[in-house]
Amino acid sequence: MQNTQRPSGMPIHKYRPFHEQITVDLPDRTWPDARITTAPRWCAVDLRDGNQALIDPMSPERKRVMFELLVNMGYKEIEVGFPSASQTDFDFVRQLIEENLIPDDVTIQVLTQAREHLIERTYESIAGAKQAIVHLYNSTSVLQREVVFRTDKQGIIDIALEGARLCREFEKRIPETQVYYEYSPESYTGTELEFAADICNQVIEVFEPTPDRKVIINLPATVEMASPNVYADSIEWMSRHLNHRENVILSLHPHNDRGTAIAAAELGYMAGADRIEGCLFGNGERTGNVDIVALGINLFTQGIDPQIDFSDIDQVKRTVEYCNQLPVPERSPWAGDLVFTAFSGSHQDAIKKGFEAMAVRADAEGVTVDDIEWAVPYLPVDPKDLGRSYEAVIRVNSQSGKGGVAYLLKADHAIDLPRKLQIEFSGVVQTKTDAEGGEVTSDQIWSIFNDEYLPAASSEDKWGRFELLATQTRSDMSGDVVLDVTLRDDDQQVAVAGNGNGPIAAFIEVLRAQGFDITLYDYVEHALSAGGDAQAAAYVELQIGDQRLWGVGIDGDISTASLKAIVSGVNRSIRARQGELAAV
Amino acid sequence: MQNTQRPSGMPIHKYRPFHEQITVDLPDRTWPDARITTAPRWCAVDLRDGNQALIDPMSPERKRVMFELLVNMGYKEIEVGFPSASQTDFDFVRQLIEENLIPDDVTIQVLTQAREHLIERTYESIAGAKQAIVHLYNSTSVLQREVVFRTDKQGIIDIALEGARLCREFEKRIPETQVYYEYSPESYTGTELEFAADICNQVIEVFEPTPDRKVIINLPATVEMASPNVYADSIEWMSRHLNHRENVILSLHPHNDRGTAIAAAELGYMAGADRIEGCLFGNGERTGNVDIVALGINLFTQGIDPQIDFSDIDQVKRTVEYCNQLPVPERSPWAGDLVFTAFSGSHQDAIKKGFEAMAVRADAEGVTVDDIEWAVPYLPVDPKDLGRSYEAVIRVNSQSGKGGVAYLLKADHAIDLPRKLQIEFSGVVQTKTDAEGGEVTSDQIWSIFNDEYLPAASSEDKWGRFELLATQTRSDMSGDVVLDVTLRDDDQQVAVAGNGNGPIAAFIEVLRAQGFDITLYDYVEHALSAGGDAQAAAYVELQIGDQRLWGVGIDGDISTASLKAIVSGVNRSIRARQGELAAV
Repeated sequence: MQNTQRPSGMPIHKYRPFHEQITVDLPDRTWPDARITTAPRWCAVDLRDGNQALIDPMSPERKRVMFELLVNMGYKEIEVGFPSASQTDFDFVRQLIEENLIPDDVTIQVLTQAREHLIERTYESIAGAKQAIVHLYNSTSVLQREVVFRTDKQGIIDIALEGARLCREFEKRIPETQVYYEYSPESYTGTELEFAADICNQVIEVFEPTPDRKVIINLPATVEMASPNVYADSIEWMSRHLNHRENVILSLHPHNDRGTAIAAAELGYMAGADRIEGCLFGNGERTGNVDIVALGINLFTQGIDPQIDFSDIDQVKRTVEYCNQLPVPERSPWAGDLVFTAFSGSHQDAIKKGFEAMAVRADAEGVTVDDIEWAVPYLPVDPKDLGRSYEAVIRVNSQSGKGGVAYLLKADHAIDLPRKLQIEFSGVVQTKTDAEGGEVTSDQIWSIFNDEYLPAASSEDKWGRFELLATQTRSDMSGDVVLDVTLRDDDQQVAVAGNGNGPIAAFIEVLRAQGFDITLYDYVEHALSAGGDAQAAAYVELQIGDQRLWGVGIDGDISTASLKAIVSGVNRSIRARQGELAAV
Repeated sequence: MQNTQRPSGMPIHKYRPFHEQITVDLPDRTWPDARITTAPRWCAVDLRDGNQALIDPMSPERKRVMFELLVNMGYKEIEVGFPSASQTDFDFVRQLIEENLIPDDVTIQVLTQAREHLIERTYESIAGAKQAIVHLYNSTSVLQREVVFRTDKQGIIDIALEGARLCREFEKRIPETQVYYEYSPESYTGTELEFAADICNQVIEVFEPTPDRKVIINLPATVEMASPNVYADSIEWMSRHLNHRENVILSLHPHNDRGTAIAAAELGYMAGADRIEGCLFGNGERTGNVDIVALGINLFTQGIDPQIDFSDIDQVKRTVEYCNQLPVPERSPWAGDLVFTAFSGSHQDAIKKGFEAMAVRADAEGVTVDDIEWAVPYLPVDPKDLGRSYEAVIRVNSQSGKGGVAYLLKADHAIDLPRKLQIEFSGVVQTKTDAEGGEVTSDQIWSIFNDEYLPAASSEDKWGRFELLATQTRSDMSGDVVLDVTLRDDDQQVAVAGNGNGPIAAFIEVLRAQGFDITLYDYVEHALSAGGDAQAAAYVELQIGDQRLWGVGIDGDISTASLKAIVSGVNRSIRARQGELAAV
């Protein structure tokens, strides 16, 4: 069996292997035998490194939402900006301090270059905070010394030491703030290890660490240049060569250029680091910072408390997507829309047997399944622990061989279902066609979709309890909307009213007043065509009691389509509950 | 500096660390000192493991396109389906063979469970192929033995051996096909190593490997259960314990549950593996198979020939997105839309100096920059080597603080720019506002957008050489469209015609006939509103000569909008070239 692969013709002569650029030699490494047993100190840098890498940087309002999310999840060290480089960052830090938005046990962190006017401005930004980490950096790599700074090693050390000394000076101006220090030899992965240790040790002396006031030494893979074991070797080497190691918090800051940042963080932590900086879902420059959601949940699946709350991962995802205006990919670890799906029949069968075996075992032990060890094939974590659910998706191919359900709805009806609704609807189609057998036509799919989500055309076929008959919205420009709705509730006509920051929020208030425990999880809308009879489709993911399901609305008016979608979800929820009751 | 992190309340009692489930003990491991110097044998499993994980499985046509892409990139072993489990997979394998679509140096691979009727059907599917790999698997993990198969180790071994023996029997039915074998102990990562080695060694004996007919032993991380160093340890252990090792091709098949599949593949390859199975951009079950694009380009950046052609990564990405109907994420390594951007001023400055230093060095050596070593800060690869370009993006914030350019275009004008066009347009806005200084209003952005991409309202302001005056398309239902276009070419009116599989292809033919070296790279469209005067926007990314740029068209008819977008791109290209001439 010959290997028939051929040279690619790619210009490999332009590149040198990493080990010819930087020597990392640690034959007596110990990290491969280490085991992680506790969570690292986390530092979330979404508001700085993450925000810096967005096409559309966060507005002040989006920054506030991100900060609150990080605090609520349990992050205690949060890099909130680069205040000396950006007026909006400066203003945001001031807002946090002046509006008293920082909990006592949370420490904000601000980045600064090692230049006097920038350092001065940095201290202005944090004045009045209870405590803050000043994160000082300068670039140390061979390449940056040569082409950017055009100076030798001593020149680079001088920049760092001058910066550190200025920090100690300006620190005196804000005695009411407890200042901690972090130093990063930026572009560390391109820096000779001896030089990295030398400059860090000299900076450490200036910051005079004590047990109560340790210094953070942060070793960024500004660019990920080698496989993650090499980063781990370098971290173990540094951990051995840093002075006052007991008073140094060794911090990692991996980027993901090679796609191995999560591994680099884990192996680097095994190699002796104490702390990890990264972003939710791996936002950040180029390929991103390391994904601290994946790192945290990886710990959780090993029975280690991440000290961060991931129990409603969809809510976290939705908030981050709002703040970053970037989608979390479908296959993002532990959180992507497709992560808890099984499409293969043999996987589905094994998962089913796994759930059954757990139920039998729990029963035998006289406890619930939540009390025993999780053990289900193909599901390394209980989706419920993250607020998710497992979806067995049996794909339905069309007779024409032109693709599946979602494809045909889009091609033939311009209906572009959100990913999770595609999964839900595939299950609906499967249930309906199982009974009949065989493959399914595009017309059948459209008919099933209408029957499931949209009100039937004739009044006899209407199966839902509620129907939207009329709506009216009023706004006095205060930001609040008052919504008046006339609903058909079975055979009765009822008039109800609610208010909120928009018609959807107001309508949800209306339904809550009707006794529905309802929360909006996701909302997507699009226009259906560019023709003269243009309609809009709205899709809402709702939590109603213990049910998570979707509703769909179509209307010429986008606002009405949204309200119809909510009605669709509520009607489906009621029907599902009645189905359960009928089955008892 | 106290660590104030608190317990999360997550149910950690449900999970046990991996090392308490499976023992992997290799204190004398050698892989951390190994260095990769050559590409592994690649096996692309996009058409099987990848396809199996799509909400909408690939249509036959999309499968054909994927197969051709993989062949053209240089993959020589391609898993093309699970023919005994799916009629569409069976039909596709038959089509490849009967229509002679498999090059002589490419080996197709088909998956089968170890059950007689499935094995028989598998051999029917490959009859007539010059050569094929039959990939036999059964599940071996502790968990699957207990809850799915309810049998002991010997029972699992019997399944594998019976399957292997049946393969040898059915092989005789197709003597004209050279059959090779691959065996996977599925759910390997949850299997005791001793048992995995035992079952593999017994299967190896049945397959009787020789130097000319080696056996592939594939060790899948069906579920990624531990950090990648543990997988590497297990691979080195297995490599030492497999019999006939010289006639065994040790293969890896990492999944990405923990987000460390790329690392697992690299460390496992260092640990002695010969071959890696994965999917382009990491498609596959749940979080995906390992990303073989990232693995290949990681090699390239170390001066190692990946033996796969990645020189037009955008084309690869576009084709994969078409086949999978899933987007490649913005931050996907080496290929995402945001990977070669720099938003930070200091990064941009360093990159600029890096380019300048390379030019000086090349000059001094009397060669071109393509002859010398690549060394630019923050850009670990020359984007040009992948057919990409570097984008320095200076973000523009609106005065209202409501977000940037893309956000405002969407909020105020329903214009939803594709990611790469957002980047291009940010640069346009920056250039125009730099001259004037200060921040920018939403109205200014809209005016700049119109001036740059859309024809001006009054005829005096029209700056483009071409304008679409009238179009007519005809189709005789053969799949081909004939397009007649009346164009304004400066002051003249010209009538031209072309044909293609749609109006866009036909119009590109028209423009090629006019002397433009033009290729379509990306095409996106959406409706602008749901109102009565609905319009559609079309965006096209074009390669025109050595320029890569975008065009935009807006019209009530989506087809006309597309043609307008192409005209917009061509006009911009001409203007840019005139600008260069004027600057000389």
